[in-house]
Amino acid sequence: MIVYCNGEFMEKSKVVISPDDRGFLFADGVYEVIRAYQGRLFKRAEHFDRLAYGLKELRIGGVDLNSLAAIAARLLTDNGLAKADATVYLQITRGSAPRSHRFPPTGTPPTCYLEAKPFSPPTNVQQTGAAAITVPDQRWARCDIKTIALLANTLAHQQAHEAGAFEAIFARNGVLQEGSHSSILFVKDNVLISPPLTNHILAGITRSVVHSVAAAESISTATRSCHEDELPEFQEVLMVGTTVDIVPITVVNGRPIGGGAPGPIARKLQSALHKLTQPSPS
Amino acid sequence: MIVYCNGEFMEKSKVVISPDDRGFLFADGVYEVIRAYQGRLFKRAEHFDRLAYGLKELRIGGVDLNSLAAIAARLLTDNGLAKADATVYLQITRGSAPRSHRFPPTGTPPTCYLEAKPFSPPTNVQQTGAAAITVPDQRWARCDIKTIALLANTLAHQQAHEAGAFEAIFARNGVLQEGSHSSILFVKDNVLISPPLTNHILAGITRSVVHSVAAAESISTATRSCHEDELPEFQEVLMVGTTVDIVPITVVNGRPIGGGAPGPIARKLQSALHKLTQPSPS
Repeated sequence: MIVYCNGEFMEKSKVVISPDDRGFLFADGVYEVIRAYQGRLFKRAEHFDRLAYGLKELRIGGVDLNSLAAIAARLLTDNGLAKADATVYLQITRGSAPRSHRFPPTGTPPTCYLEAKPFSPPTNVQQTGAAAITVPDQRWARCDIKTIALLANTLAHQQAHEAGAFEAIFARNGVLQEGSHSSILFVKDNVLISPPLTNHILAGITRSVVHSVAAAESISTATRSCHEDELPEFQEVLMVGTTVDIVPITVVNGRPIGGGAPGPIARKLQSALHKLTQPSPS
Repeated sequence: MIVYCNGEFMEKSKVVISPDDRGFLFADGVYEVIRAYQGRLFKRAEHFDRLAYGLKELRIGGVDLNSLAAIAARLLTDNGLAKADATVYLQITRGSAPRSHRFPPTGTPPTCYLEAKPFSPPTNVQQTGAAAITVPDQRWARCDIKTIALLANTLAHQQAHEAGAFEAIFARNGVLQEGSHSSILFVKDNVLISPPLTNHILAGITRSVVHSVAAAESISTATRSCHEDELPEFQEVLMVGTTVDIVPITVVNGRPIGGGAPGPIARKLQSALHKLTQPSPS
Protein backbone atom coordinates (compact mmCIF):
# COMPACT_ATOMS: atom_id res chain seq x y z
CA MET A 1 0.00 0.00 0.00
CA ILE A 2 1.28 3.44 -0.93
CA VAL A 3 0.57 6.01 1.76
CA TYR A 4 1.46 9.63 2.33
CA CYS A 5 3.42 10.87 5.32
CA ASN A 6 4.85 14.35 5.82
CA GLY A 7 5.46 15.28 2.21
CA GLU A 8 6.32 11.85 0.83
CA PHE A 9 4.48 9.01 -0.86
CA MET A 10 5.88 5.69 0.28
CA GLU A 11 5.15 2.09 1.06
CA LYS A 12 3.21 1.92 4.33
CA SER A 13 5.88 -0.37 5.78
CA LYS A 14 8.41 2.46 5.40
CA VAL A 15 6.43 4.99 7.45
CA VAL A 16 8.15 6.11 10.61
CA ILE A 17 6.05 7.77 13.28
CA SER A 18 8.34 9.21 15.93
CA PRO A 19 7.92 8.15 19.57
CA ASP A 20 7.91 11.92 20.19
CA ASP A 21 4.91 12.42 17.93
CA ARG A 22 2.23 14.25 19.87
CA GLY A 23 -0.32 11.93 18.36
CA PHE A 24 1.45 9.01 20.06
CA LEU A 25 2.15 10.82 23.36
CA PHE A 26 -0.89 13.05 23.88
CA ALA A 27 -3.68 12.18 21.40
CA ASP A 28 -2.97 15.67 20.14
CA GLY A 29 -4.49 15.50 16.68
CA VAL A 30 -7.53 15.15 14.47
CA TYR A 31 -8.63 12.77 11.74
CA GLU A 32 -11.19 12.17 9.02
CA VAL A 33 -12.41 9.12 7.16
CA ILE A 34 -13.77 9.90 3.70
CA ARG A 35 -15.55 7.52 1.35
CA ALA A 36 -14.43 7.42 -2.25
CA TYR A 37 -16.71 6.10 -4.98
CA GLN A 38 -14.96 5.40 -8.27
CA GLY A 39 -12.17 7.78 -7.29
CA ARG A 40 -14.52 10.56 -6.23
CA LEU A 41 -14.35 11.71 -2.60
CA PHE A 42 -17.89 11.85 -1.24
CA LYS A 43 -18.73 15.13 0.57
CA ARG A 44 -15.12 16.19 0.27
CA ALA A 45 -15.74 19.83 1.11
CA GLU A 46 -17.70 18.92 4.23
CA HIS A 47 -14.96 16.63 5.49
CA PHE A 48 -12.29 19.24 4.88
CA ASP A 49 -14.40 21.91 6.54
CA ARG A 50 -14.75 19.74 9.62
CA LEU A 51 -11.04 19.01 9.58
CA ALA A 52 -10.34 22.74 9.37
CA TYR A 53 -12.67 23.31 12.31
CA GLY A 54 -10.81 20.74 14.41
CA LEU A 55 -7.41 22.19 13.51
CA LYS A 56 -8.66 25.67 14.40
CA GLU A 57 -10.11 24.55 17.73
CA LEU A 58 -6.89 22.73 18.65
CA ARG A 59 -4.78 25.53 17.13
CA ILE A 60 -2.76 23.18 14.96
CA GLY A 61 -1.32 25.28 12.15
CA GLY A 62 0.89 24.72 9.16
CA VAL A 63 -1.42 22.34 7.31
CA ASP A 64 -1.95 22.96 3.61
CA LEU A 65 -5.54 21.72 3.43
CA ASN A 66 -5.75 22.50 -0.29
CA SER A 67 -3.03 20.01 -1.06
CA LEU A 68 -4.67 17.17 0.86
CA ALA A 69 -7.45 16.51 -1.62
CA ALA A 70 -4.88 16.10 -4.39
CA ILE A 71 -2.86 13.79 -2.16
CA ALA A 72 -5.97 11.72 -1.46
CA ALA A 73 -6.72 11.53 -5.18
CA ARG A 74 -3.21 10.36 -5.94
CA LEU A 75 -3.39 7.72 -3.21
CA LEU A 76 -6.55 6.35 -4.80
CA THR A 77 -4.83 6.17 -8.17
CA ASP A 78 -1.51 4.80 -6.91
CA ASN A 79 -3.31 2.05 -5.01
CA GLY A 80 -5.50 1.03 -7.92
CA LEU A 81 -8.63 2.42 -6.29
CA ALA A 82 -9.65 4.97 -8.90
CA LYS A 83 -12.46 2.69 -10.06
CA ALA A 84 -13.29 1.12 -6.74
CA ASP A 85 -15.09 1.84 -3.48
CA ALA A 86 -12.53 2.96 -0.94
CA THR A 87 -11.92 4.98 2.17
CA VAL A 88 -9.32 7.66 2.68
CA TYR A 89 -8.01 7.97 6.22
CA LEU A 90 -6.37 11.26 7.10
CA GLN A 91 -4.71 12.13 10.40
CA ILE A 92 -2.97 15.31 11.44
CA THR A 93 -1.14 15.73 14.74
CA ARG A 94 0.66 18.66 16.31
CA GLY A 95 3.94 17.13 15.17
CA SER A 96 6.94 15.71 16.88
CA ALA A 97 8.77 17.46 19.72
CA PRO A 98 10.43 16.58 23.03
CA ARG A 99 7.64 15.56 25.41
CA SER A 100 6.01 18.52 27.16
CA HIS A 101 2.35 19.23 27.84
CA ARG A 102 2.99 22.70 26.45
CA PHE A 103 2.64 23.16 22.68
CA PRO A 104 5.92 22.68 20.78
CA PRO A 105 7.75 25.73 19.42
CA THR A 106 6.02 27.70 16.68
CA GLY A 107 7.06 26.32 13.34
CA THR A 108 7.10 22.69 14.46
CA PRO A 109 5.59 20.98 11.42
CA PRO A 110 2.42 18.97 12.02
CA THR A 111 2.44 15.28 11.22
CA CYS A 112 0.23 14.61 8.23
CA TYR A 113 -0.63 11.00 7.39
CA LEU A 114 -3.03 9.73 4.70
CA GLU A 115 -3.87 6.30 3.41
CA ALA A 116 -6.45 4.90 1.02
CA LYS A 117 -7.76 1.36 1.02
CA PRO A 118 -10.54 -0.69 -0.53
CA PHE A 119 -13.79 -0.57 1.37
CA SER A 120 -16.98 -2.60 1.50
CA PRO A 121 -19.86 -1.31 3.58
CA PRO A 122 -21.50 -3.70 6.06
CA THR A 123 -24.30 -4.69 3.68
CA ASN A 124 -25.44 -7.57 5.86
CA VAL A 125 -26.41 -5.40 8.83
CA GLN A 126 -27.69 -2.69 6.48
CA GLN A 127 -30.19 -5.29 5.33
CA THR A 128 -30.97 -7.25 8.46
CA GLY A 129 -30.51 -4.49 11.01
CA ALA A 130 -28.21 -4.67 14.00
CA ALA A 131 -28.23 -4.62 17.77
CA ALA A 132 -26.85 -1.81 19.91
CA ILE A 133 -26.27 -1.26 23.60
CA THR A 134 -26.27 1.99 25.56
CA VAL A 135 -23.23 2.88 27.64
CA PRO A 136 -22.51 5.81 29.96
CA ASP A 137 -20.77 8.58 28.03
CA GLN A 138 -17.34 8.74 29.64
CA ARG A 139 -15.81 10.89 26.92
CA TRP A 140 -14.41 14.35 27.30
CA ALA A 141 -16.42 17.54 26.81
CA ARG A 142 -15.27 18.39 23.27
CA CYS A 143 -16.76 15.59 21.20
CA ASP A 144 -17.58 18.25 18.59
CA ILE A 145 -13.93 17.96 17.54
CA LYS A 146 -13.00 14.81 15.64
CA THR A 147 -9.86 14.10 17.65
CA ILE A 148 -7.79 10.96 17.90
CA ALA A 149 -8.45 10.88 21.67
CA LEU A 150 -10.68 7.88 21.03
CA LEU A 151 -9.90 5.63 23.96
CA ALA A 152 -13.41 5.90 25.43
CA ASN A 153 -14.84 5.15 21.98
CA THR A 154 -12.76 2.01 21.53
CA LEU A 155 -13.67 0.75 25.01
CA ALA A 156 -17.37 1.35 24.33
CA HIS A 157 -17.19 -0.31 20.94
CA GLN A 158 -15.41 -3.32 22.36
CA GLN A 159 -18.06 -3.57 25.08
CA ALA A 160 -20.75 -3.60 22.39
CA HIS A 161 -18.87 -6.23 20.42
CA GLU A 162 -18.57 -8.48 23.45
CA ALA A 163 -22.29 -8.03 24.11
CA GLY A 164 -22.96 -9.29 20.58
CA ALA A 165 -23.95 -5.80 19.42
CA PHE A 166 -22.80 -3.74 16.46
CA GLU A 167 -22.62 -0.35 18.14
CA ALA A 168 -22.55 1.34 21.55
CA ILE A 169 -24.71 4.42 21.99
CA PHE A 170 -23.37 6.96 24.46
CA ALA A 171 -25.88 8.23 27.03
CA ARG A 172 -24.86 11.27 29.07
CA ASN A 173 -27.05 11.65 32.12
CA GLY A 174 -29.63 9.58 30.26
CA VAL A 175 -29.55 11.68 27.10
CA LEU A 176 -28.65 9.69 23.99
CA GLN A 177 -25.78 11.38 22.17
CA GLU A 178 -24.23 9.32 19.37
CA GLY A 179 -22.54 6.02 18.70
CA SER A 180 -18.93 5.06 19.37
CA HIS A 181 -18.19 5.59 15.68
CA SER A 182 -21.48 6.79 14.19
CA SER A 183 -24.35 9.23 14.58
CA ILE A 184 -27.64 7.92 15.93
CA LEU A 185 -31.05 9.11 14.72
CA PHE A 186 -34.48 8.24 16.05
CA VAL A 187 -37.97 7.94 14.61
CA LYS A 188 -41.04 8.70 16.69
CA ASP A 189 -44.49 9.66 15.42
CA ASN A 190 -43.04 9.24 11.93
CA VAL A 191 -40.60 12.10 12.55
CA LEU A 192 -36.85 11.60 12.06
CA ILE A 193 -35.20 13.07 15.14
CA SER A 194 -31.58 14.17 15.38
CA PRO A 195 -30.00 15.09 18.70
CA PRO A 196 -28.90 18.73 18.74
CA LEU A 197 -25.27 19.51 17.94
CA THR A 198 -23.60 20.34 21.24
CA ASN A 199 -20.07 19.93 22.57
CA HIS A 200 -20.99 16.31 23.37
CA ILE A 201 -21.62 15.27 19.78
CA LEU A 202 -19.89 15.32 16.43
CA ALA A 203 -21.45 17.10 13.48
CA GLY A 204 -21.72 13.90 11.48
CA ILE A 205 -21.51 14.41 7.73
CA THR A 206 -23.61 11.38 6.85
CA ARG A 207 -26.05 12.54 9.50
CA SER A 208 -26.32 15.86 7.68
CA VAL A 209 -26.70 14.12 4.30
CA VAL A 210 -29.44 11.91 5.71
CA HIS A 211 -31.25 14.98 6.99
CA SER A 212 -31.18 16.55 3.53
CA VAL A 213 -32.28 13.30 1.93
CA ALA A 214 -35.14 13.01 4.42
CA ALA A 215 -36.36 16.47 3.47
CA ALA A 216 -36.25 15.55 -0.22
CA GLU A 217 -38.20 12.38 0.55
CA SER A 218 -40.85 14.36 2.45
CA ILE A 219 -39.90 12.74 5.76
CA SER A 220 -40.54 15.12 8.65
CA THR A 221 -37.45 15.92 10.69
CA ALA A 222 -36.84 17.44 14.09
CA THR A 223 -33.86 18.27 16.23
CA ARG A 224 -34.20 17.58 19.93
CA SER A 225 -32.59 15.63 22.73
CA CYS A 226 -33.73 12.05 23.09
CA HIS A 227 -33.70 10.24 26.38
CA GLU A 228 -32.82 6.64 27.14
CA ASP A 229 -36.28 6.26 28.70
CA GLU A 230 -37.83 6.93 25.29
CA LEU A 231 -36.24 3.89 23.67
CA PRO A 232 -39.41 1.76 23.96
CA GLU A 233 -41.33 4.53 22.18
CA PHE A 234 -39.15 4.83 19.08
CA GLN A 235 -40.45 3.31 15.87
CA GLU A 236 -36.95 3.15 14.45
CA VAL A 237 -33.39 3.87 15.46
CA LEU A 238 -30.81 4.54 12.75
CA MET A 239 -27.05 4.36 12.94
CA VAL A 240 -25.51 6.54 10.25
CA GLY A 241 -21.93 7.32 9.36
CA THR A 242 -19.23 7.33 6.73
CA THR A 243 -18.33 3.66 7.13
CA VAL A 244 -21.80 2.29 7.87
CA ASP A 245 -24.03 4.42 5.62
CA ILE A 246 -27.38 3.69 7.29
CA VAL A 247 -27.77 0.66 9.54
CA PRO A 248 -31.17 0.10 11.14
CA ILE A 249 -30.81 -0.55 14.86
CA THR A 250 -33.48 -3.11 15.58
CA VAL A 251 -32.54 -4.04 19.13
CA VAL A 252 -31.19 -1.87 21.93
CA ASN A 253 -30.08 -3.43 25.21
CA GLY A 254 -31.78 -6.64 24.15
CA ARG A 255 -35.19 -5.06 23.55
CA PRO A 256 -36.65 -4.69 20.08
CA ILE A 257 -37.10 -1.24 18.55
CA GLY A 258 -40.47 -0.86 16.82
CA GLY A 259 -41.24 -4.25 15.37
CA GLY A 260 -37.66 -5.45 15.84
CA ALA A 261 -37.01 -5.23 12.09
CA PRO A 262 -35.74 -2.47 9.79
CA GLY A 263 -38.46 0.14 9.39
CA PRO A 264 -39.81 1.98 6.36
CA ILE A 265 -37.97 5.25 7.03
CA ALA A 266 -34.63 3.44 7.23
CA ARG A 267 -35.42 1.67 3.95
CA LYS A 268 -36.44 4.87 2.21
CA LEU A 269 -33.34 6.72 3.40
CA GLN A 270 -31.03 3.84 2.50
CA SER A 271 -32.40 3.81 -0.99
CA ALA A 272 -32.11 7.58 -1.38
CA LEU A 273 -28.57 7.64 0.01
CA HIS A 274 -27.56 4.83 -2.31
CA LYS A 275 -28.73 6.87 -5.30
CA LEU A 276 -26.62 9.81 -4.12
CA THR A 277 -23.44 7.84 -3.83
CA GLN A 278 -23.65 5.53 -6.82
CA PRO A 279 -23.10 6.98 -10.26
CA SER A 280 -26.28 6.65 -12.31
CA PRO A 281 -25.99 3.95 -15.00
CA SER A 282 -25.28 5.57 -18.35
CA MET B 1 20.06 8.46 23.33
CA ILE B 2 19.55 4.71 23.70
CA VAL B 3 15.90 3.79 24.17
CA TYR B 4 13.92 0.59 24.35
CA CYS B 5 11.16 -0.34 21.95
CA ASN B 6 9.45 -3.72 21.67
CA GLY B 7 12.28 -5.94 22.77
CA GLU B 8 15.21 -3.97 21.43
CA PHE B 9 17.60 -1.35 22.74
CA MET B 10 18.41 1.15 20.00
CA GLU B 11 19.23 4.73 19.16
CA LYS B 12 16.08 6.81 19.55
CA SER B 13 16.39 7.98 15.94
CA LYS B 14 15.93 4.36 14.82
CA VAL B 15 12.62 3.85 16.60
CA VAL B 16 9.70 3.17 14.30
CA ILE B 17 6.20 3.64 15.67
CA SER B 18 3.70 2.29 13.16
CA PRO B 19 0.95 4.54 11.81
CA ASP B 20 -1.31 1.63 12.84
CA ASP B 21 -0.17 1.83 16.44
CA ARG B 22 -3.24 2.17 18.64
CA GLY B 23 -1.37 4.77 20.64
CA PHE B 24 -1.17 6.92 17.54
CA LEU B 25 -4.72 6.20 16.27
CA PHE B 26 -6.80 5.89 19.45
CA ALA B 27 -4.82 7.08 22.50
CA ASP B 28 -5.15 3.46 23.52
CA GLY B 29 -2.38 3.17 26.07
CA VAL B 30 -0.91 4.10 29.42
CA TYR B 31 2.31 5.66 30.61
CA GLU B 32 4.42 6.44 33.64
CA VAL B 33 7.18 8.91 34.41
CA ILE B 34 9.55 7.76 37.15
CA ARG B 35 12.33 9.76 38.79
CA ALA B 36 15.71 8.15 39.12
CA TYR B 37 18.22 9.38 41.68
CA GLN B 38 21.74 8.08 41.16
CA GLY B 39 20.38 5.18 39.18
CA ARG B 40 17.71 4.28 41.74
CA LEU B 41 14.07 4.45 40.61
CA PHE B 42 12.11 6.38 43.22
CA LYS B 43 8.88 4.65 44.33
CA ARG B 44 9.39 2.04 41.67
CA ALA B 45 6.87 -0.42 43.10
CA GLU B 46 4.19 2.25 43.33
CA HIS B 47 4.70 3.32 39.70
CA PHE B 48 4.58 -0.26 38.48
CA ASP B 49 1.51 -0.98 40.58
CA ARG B 50 -0.25 2.01 39.00
CA LEU B 51 0.86 0.89 35.56
CA ALA B 52 -0.52 -2.58 36.26
CA TYR B 53 -3.80 -1.02 37.36
CA GLY B 54 -4.08 0.95 34.10
CA LEU B 55 -3.27 -2.10 32.00
CA LYS B 56 -5.87 -4.11 33.89
CA GLU B 57 -8.56 -1.44 33.52
CA LEU B 58 -7.87 -1.11 29.78
CA ARG B 59 -7.39 -4.89 29.44
CA ILE B 60 -4.04 -4.56 27.74
CA GLY B 61 -2.25 -7.85 28.24
CA GLY B 62 1.02 -9.39 27.24
CA VAL B 63 3.26 -6.99 29.17
CA ASP B 64 6.07 -8.48 31.22
CA LEU B 65 6.07 -5.88 33.98
CA ASN B 66 8.88 -7.64 35.82
CA SER B 67 11.24 -7.07 32.94
CA LEU B 68 10.55 -3.34 32.70
CA ALA B 69 12.44 -2.35 35.83
CA ALA B 70 15.55 -4.09 34.51
CA ILE B 71 15.09 -2.36 31.15
CA ALA B 72 14.79 1.00 32.90
CA ALA B 73 17.95 0.28 34.89
CA ARG B 74 19.85 -0.62 31.74
CA LEU B 75 18.66 2.56 30.00
CA LEU B 76 20.01 4.61 32.89
CA THR B 77 23.37 2.87 32.62
CA ASP B 78 23.56 2.91 28.83
CA ASN B 79 22.80 6.63 28.74
CA GLY B 80 25.36 7.51 31.41
CA LEU B 81 22.67 8.33 33.97
CA ALA B 82 23.57 5.82 36.67
CA LYS B 83 25.04 8.60 38.79
CA ALA B 84 22.70 11.39 37.74
CA ASP B 85 19.19 12.66 38.32
CA ALA B 86 16.99 11.41 35.52
CA THR B 87 13.49 10.47 34.50
CA VAL B 88 12.35 7.23 32.93
CA TYR B 89 9.40 7.55 30.57
CA LEU B 90 7.48 4.37 29.90
CA GLN B 91 4.56 3.98 27.50
CA ILE B 92 2.55 0.89 26.65
CA THR B 93 -0.13 0.80 23.97
CA ARG B 94 -2.46 -1.94 22.78
CA GLY B 95 -0.11 -2.52 19.87
CA SER B 96 -0.35 -2.15 16.15
CA ALA B 97 -3.23 -3.50 14.06
CA PRO B 98 -5.38 -2.44 11.10
CA ARG B 99 -7.54 0.44 12.29
CA SER B 100 -10.73 -0.70 14.03
CA HIS B 101 -12.39 0.60 17.17
CA ARG B 102 -12.64 -3.01 18.28
CA PHE B 103 -9.64 -4.47 20.13
CA PRO B 104 -7.11 -6.18 17.86
CA PRO B 105 -6.96 -9.99 17.79
CA THR B 106 -5.81 -11.72 20.96
CA GLY B 107 -2.06 -12.15 20.87
CA THR B 108 -1.38 -8.81 19.20
CA PRO B 109 1.72 -7.71 21.09
CA PRO B 110 1.48 -4.40 22.96
CA THR B 111 3.86 -1.61 22.03
CA CYS B 112 6.32 -1.04 24.83
CA TYR B 113 8.52 2.07 24.73
CA LEU B 114 10.94 3.33 27.38
CA GLU B 115 13.44 6.13 27.48
CA ALA B 116 15.65 7.68 30.16
CA LYS B 117 16.98 11.20 30.12
CA PRO B 118 18.69 13.65 32.45
CA PHE B 119 16.32 15.65 34.59
CA SER B 120 16.49 18.83 36.63
CA PRO B 121 13.50 19.77 38.75
CA PRO B 122 12.10 23.31 38.48
CA THR B 123 14.05 24.62 41.46
CA ASN B 124 13.23 28.24 40.68
CA VAL B 125 9.47 27.85 41.15
CA GLN B 126 10.03 25.42 44.01
CA GLN B 127 11.72 28.34 45.76
CA THR B 128 9.71 31.34 44.63
CA GLY B 129 6.33 29.69 44.17
CA ALA B 130 4.31 29.77 41.00
CA ALA B 131 1.01 30.97 39.63
CA ALA B 132 -1.85 28.71 38.55
CA ILE B 133 -5.18 29.18 36.86
CA THR B 134 -8.36 27.14 37.19
CA VAL B 135 -9.96 25.72 34.06
CA PRO B 136 -13.15 23.72 33.54
CA ASP B 137 -12.39 20.00 33.67
CA GLN B 138 -13.16 18.82 30.14
CA ARG B 139 -11.46 15.47 30.54
CA TRP B 140 -13.07 12.09 30.34
CA ALA B 141 -14.53 10.20 33.28
CA ARG B 142 -11.61 7.82 33.91
CA CYS B 143 -8.84 10.13 35.05
CA ASP B 144 -7.94 7.46 37.60
CA ILE B 145 -6.16 5.68 34.75
CA LYS B 146 -2.89 7.25 33.61
CA THR B 147 -3.67 7.05 29.90
CA ILE B 148 -2.06 8.81 26.98
CA ALA B 149 -5.43 10.41 26.11
CA LEU B 150 -3.95 13.69 27.31
CA LEU B 151 -5.31 16.17 24.80
CA ALA B 152 -7.42 18.03 27.37
CA ASN B 153 -4.39 18.16 29.66
CA THR B 154 -2.14 19.66 27.01
CA LEU B 155 -4.76 22.26 26.07
CA ALA B 156 -5.20 23.24 29.72
CA HIS B 157 -1.47 23.41 30.31
CA GLN B 158 -0.98 25.56 27.23
CA GLN B 159 -3.75 27.86 28.42
CA ALA B 160 -1.95 28.23 31.75
CA HIS B 161 1.34 28.90 30.01
CA GLU B 162 -0.21 31.62 27.86
CA ALA B 163 -1.74 33.15 30.98
CA GLY B 164 1.75 33.35 32.48
CA ALA B 165 0.98 30.55 34.90
CA PHE B 166 2.82 27.34 35.70
CA GLU B 167 -0.13 25.00 36.04
CA ALA B 168 -3.83 24.68 35.25
CA ILE B 169 -6.06 23.25 37.97
CA PHE B 170 -9.09 21.34 36.72
CA ALA B 171 -12.39 22.28 38.36
CA ARG B 172 -15.35 19.98 37.70
CA ASN B 173 -18.61 21.67 38.60
CA GLY B 174 -16.59 23.94 40.84
CA VAL B 175 -14.77 21.12 42.63
CA LEU B 176 -10.98 21.34 42.38
CA GLN B 177 -9.60 18.04 41.13
CA GLU B 178 -5.91 18.11 40.14
CA GLY B 179 -3.48 19.88 37.86
CA SER B 180 -2.89 19.24 34.17
CA HIS B 181 0.21 17.26 35.08
CA SER B 182 0.29 17.27 38.87
CA SER B 183 -1.73 16.67 42.01
CA ILE B 184 -2.97 19.71 43.93
CA LEU B 185 -3.17 19.88 47.73
CA PHE B 186 -4.61 22.61 49.91
CA VAL B 187 -3.94 23.98 53.39
CA LYS B 188 -6.71 25.42 55.53
CA ASP B 189 -6.74 25.77 59.31
CA ASN B 190 -3.21 24.31 59.20
CA VAL B 191 -4.57 21.05 57.81
CA LEU B 192 -3.15 19.62 54.58
CA ILE B 193 -6.16 18.65 52.48
CA SER B 194 -6.14 16.16 49.60
CA PRO B 195 -9.12 15.77 47.27
CA PRO B 196 -10.60 12.26 47.52
CA LEU B 197 -9.51 9.71 44.94
CA THR B 198 -12.42 9.33 42.53
CA ASN B 199 -12.65 8.50 38.83
CA HIS B 200 -11.90 12.17 38.14
CA ILE B 201 -8.44 12.16 39.67
CA LEU B 202 -5.20 10.22 39.44
CA ALA B 203 -3.77 8.48 42.50
CA GLY B 204 -0.63 10.61 42.44
CA ILE B 205 2.42 8.87 43.82
CA THR B 206 4.16 12.04 44.98
CA ARG B 207 0.82 13.06 46.51
CA SER B 208 0.85 9.84 48.50
CA VAL B 209 4.49 10.35 49.52
CA VAL B 210 3.71 13.89 50.63
CA HIS B 211 0.84 12.57 52.74
CA SER B 212 3.15 10.13 54.49
CA VAL B 213 5.78 12.80 54.96
CA ALA B 214 3.18 15.15 56.42
CA ALA B 215 2.18 12.54 58.98
CA ALA B 216 5.82 12.05 59.94
CA GLU B 217 6.20 15.82 60.31
CA SER B 218 3.10 16.00 62.53
CA ILE B 219 1.16 18.00 59.96
CA SER B 220 -2.55 17.25 60.20
CA THR B 221 -4.06 15.86 57.05
CA ALA B 222 -7.57 15.44 55.74
CA THR B 223 -9.20 14.07 52.61
CA ARG B 224 -12.16 16.01 51.29
CA SER B 225 -13.39 17.81 48.21
CA CYS B 226 -12.30 21.42 47.89
CA HIS B 227 -14.34 23.98 46.03
CA GLU B 228 -13.17 26.82 43.81
CA ASP B 229 -15.06 29.21 46.08
CA GLU B 230 -12.72 28.25 48.92
CA LEU B 231 -9.61 29.50 47.16
CA PRO B 232 -9.53 32.79 49.10
CA GLU B 233 -9.63 30.81 52.34
CA PHE B 234 -6.65 28.55 51.70
CA GLN B 235 -3.43 29.36 53.55
CA GLU B 236 -1.42 27.42 50.98
CA VAL B 237 -1.89 25.53 47.75
CA LEU B 238 0.66 22.91 46.74
CA MET B 239 1.34 21.42 43.36
CA VAL B 240 2.99 18.01 43.74
CA GLY B 241 4.16 15.46 41.24
CA THR B 242 6.97 13.37 39.89
CA THR B 243 8.49 16.12 37.75
CA VAL B 244 7.75 19.08 40.03
CA ASP B 245 8.29 17.60 43.51
CA ILE B 246 6.50 20.26 45.55
CA VAL B 247 5.84 23.68 44.05
CA PRO B 248 4.01 26.23 46.21
CA ILE B 249 1.16 27.81 44.28
CA THR B 250 1.16 31.38 45.49
CA VAL B 251 -1.30 32.90 43.05
CA VAL B 252 -4.46 31.39 41.53
CA ASN B 253 -6.35 33.25 38.82
CA GLY B 254 -4.34 36.36 39.63
CA ARG B 255 -5.22 36.39 43.33
CA PRO B 256 -2.67 35.62 46.03
CA ILE B 257 -3.01 32.47 48.14
CA GLY B 258 -2.36 33.13 51.83
CA GLY B 259 0.30 35.80 51.92
CA GLY B 260 1.15 35.29 48.24
CA ALA B 261 4.42 33.62 49.17
CA PRO B 262 5.43 29.99 49.82
CA GLY B 263 4.02 28.96 53.20
CA PRO B 264 5.55 27.05 56.11
CA ILE B 265 3.86 23.74 55.33
CA ALA B 266 5.18 23.76 51.76
CA ARG B 267 8.67 24.50 53.07
CA LYS B 268 8.52 21.77 55.68
CA LEU B 269 7.28 19.21 53.17
CA GLN B 270 9.84 20.24 50.54
CA SER B 271 12.61 19.74 53.04
CA ALA B 272 11.27 16.38 54.18
CA LEU B 273 10.77 15.17 50.61
CA HIS B 274 14.26 16.26 49.69
CA LYS B 275 15.67 14.13 52.50
CA LEU B 276 13.76 11.14 51.21
CA THR B 277 15.07 11.39 47.67
CA GLN B 278 18.65 12.44 48.24
CA PRO B 279 21.10 9.87 49.53
CA SER B 280 22.39 10.94 52.92
CA PRO B 281 26.01 12.16 52.77
CA SER B 282 28.35 9.44 53.94
